[in-house]
Amino acid sequence: MQKTRIGIVGYGNLGRGVELALKQCPDMELVGVFTRRQPEKVEPACIQTKVMHIEDAEGMGDKIDVMILCGGSAGDLPKQGPHFARLFNTIDSFDTHAGIPEYYEKMNQAAQKSGKISIISVGWDPGLFSISRMMSEAILPNGQGYTFWGKGVSQGHSDAIRRIEGVRDAKQYTIPIEEAVSLVRSGANPQLSTADKHLRDCYVVAEEGADKARIEQEIKTMPNYFADYKTRVTFITEAELKRDHSAMPHGGFVIRSGKTGANEENSNIIEYSLKLESNPEFTASVLVAYARAAWRLNREGKSGARTVFDIPPAYLSPKSGAELRKELL
Amino acid sequence: MQKTRIGIVGYGNLGRGVELALKQCPDMELVGVFTRRQPEKVEPACIQTKVMHIEDAEGMGDKIDVMILCGGSAGDLPKQGPHFARLFNTIDSFDTHAGIPEYYEKMNQAAQKSGKISIISVGWDPGLFSISRMMSEAILPNGQGYTFWGKGVSQGHSDAIRRIEGVRDAKQYTIPIEEAVSLVRSGANPQLSTADKHLRDCYVVAEEGADKARIEQEIKTMPNYFADYKTRVTFITEAELKRDHSAMPHGGFVIRSGKTGANEENSNIIEYSLKLESNPEFTASVLVAYARAAWRLNREGKSGARTVFDIPPAYLSPKSGAELRKELL
Repeated sequence: MQKTRIGIVGYGNLGRGVELALKQCPDMELVGVFTRRQPEKVEPACIQTKVMHIEDAEGMGDKIDVMILCGGSAGDLPKQGPHFARLFNTIDSFDTHAGIPEYYEKMNQAAQKSGKISIISVGWDPGLFSISRMMSEAILPNGQGYTFWGKGVSQGHSDAIRRIEGVRDAKQYTIPIEEAVSLVRSGANPQLSTADKHLRDCYVVAEEGADKARIEQEIKTMPNYFADYKTRVTFITEAELKRDHSAMPHGGFVIRSGKTGANEENSNIIEYSLKLESNPEFTASVLVAYARAAWRLNREGKSGARTVFDIPPAYLSPKSGAELRKELL
Repeated sequence: MQKTRIGIVGYGNLGRGVELALKQCPDMELVGVFTRRQPEKVEPACIQTKVMHIEDAEGMGDKIDVMILCGGSAGDLPKQGPHFARLFNTIDSFDTHAGIPEYYEKMNQAAQKSGKISIISVGWDPGLFSISRMMSEAILPNGQGYTFWGKGVSQGHSDAIRRIEGVRDAKQYTIPIEEAVSLVRSGANPQLSTADKHLRDCYVVAEEGADKARIEQEIKTMPNYFADYKTRVTFITEAELKRDHSAMPHGGFVIRSGKTGANEENSNIIEYSLKLESNPEFTASVLVAYARAAWRLNREGKSGARTVFDIPPAYLSPKSGAELRKELL
């Protein structure tokens, strides 16, 4: 079997996750990691992984079947995405929901021109959660959908706390509110805002002598980030933060509750849930499965941008159609 | 907008569910129900539904875009499937797991010959549960998958009890065993047989004067159906059966637990669950969404048999790609 040859652009937590996920896929091989840093200063998770400079990627169009772009949505992907789509089949996890239509158009133009496939916004949200929202709505049109996130770390909210004067470090967990979850699972179809559904739980390390009451007040009244939410603030030591809050768990669930029957008398509930001990490693595992799909689509002669909505489930699997029908249908 | 024109073959609980589900879809219209019974003796759920004899369907190839086959997998579909695939795009819920490869081949031959699309084995298992099993395995190859069914009525097991001498009527519920569910959700990846995962809960109406102890013994020792399972038998009156056990709830969940990380140190759990107050109405809602996909594929010039694994999620929705990307991604 010819292995699918993968490249990784960007070597943070996500890129490292892709490197590890590929080790679980006998049908794929890692050609190398491309970084903006000095390659010799990057220490990969696997000793045999080749690290190259990002500029070396350009000449490798015939050596890499799919490039997995592991940069961030704010700073990296808007430029890196179209650039690499002109050279390779690509997968990315662009997750700025409001920016997706514009990003899709740019990626579609670039990939159509190069004759390559670019699957954008892959991961779990956007990604697997989107599929669940979409399919559940198509199946139960007479209903209501809900997305809950957590328990997991929100990088954006943690950063916002760190910008407050007197804060040395912080982690913010988004936690679904149990009462809201129960109400939704009961089929009651309540009206709920994001703030009604989530608690913001903050662990803060203050500078020595800082005014903790003022910090707590600033957090709880911060517009957009915390003011509308039920927010809990706990001050801890730097050692405690490192010991208890270094992991990267996340997860959440998508629930749709819909009515069927002559008098809408029957309630049916679809729930898709994730409980992840490693958010970046799981997201990376999703990217790798979709890399398989990108390569297969491109070998069929297809080009242009795609989202998870456009990909038949079978394309994620190394198994044949006959194997899938026999073993998993 | 041109509506998709649907026909229904077979008018039991499932056919009636399709009739009701179509009322929730403004992009579809029901041309009529085709039955083996005398049409004038069938009373449809909606007064405006046209009921015709099954033999009248043959001449309606240009009036129906997709025929939804609502017959049973044992007696009806093996014959009806290939017959209608020669005339129409079709959707069916063929659910004899072991017979799927052979049924697929027959349907594929018929549909390729007619230039139509036949999506087979649509519903929730096989169907939505299959998609979850398949995608979760592709994403977390280093893991273990589990399917639990229930709480819900098993028609086959209820029938088996009714065949025992002295039994007037019976209902059997399949119920997931809580301890097994908890163990799986913990990420422990236990080895579990179907019997380890499910309790069989039987409600039995005995004939007057029948030997209840003998009936209970016969149920609990019945090979394949009950002998390997934890089985509970409760005798009730006919009035109680009618009052408390007439509904058709079902559901269940597919769980996959997989490890990621350099030392497989992180556990990630994907769970897809359904809680249905009406099994036939929900299954019907899934069939209707896939009818949309069949018609769209056929308009693109595609033909042959498909399963849920082959269908891009977007094809289930009446919304455009741009709408889906903007609203649901």
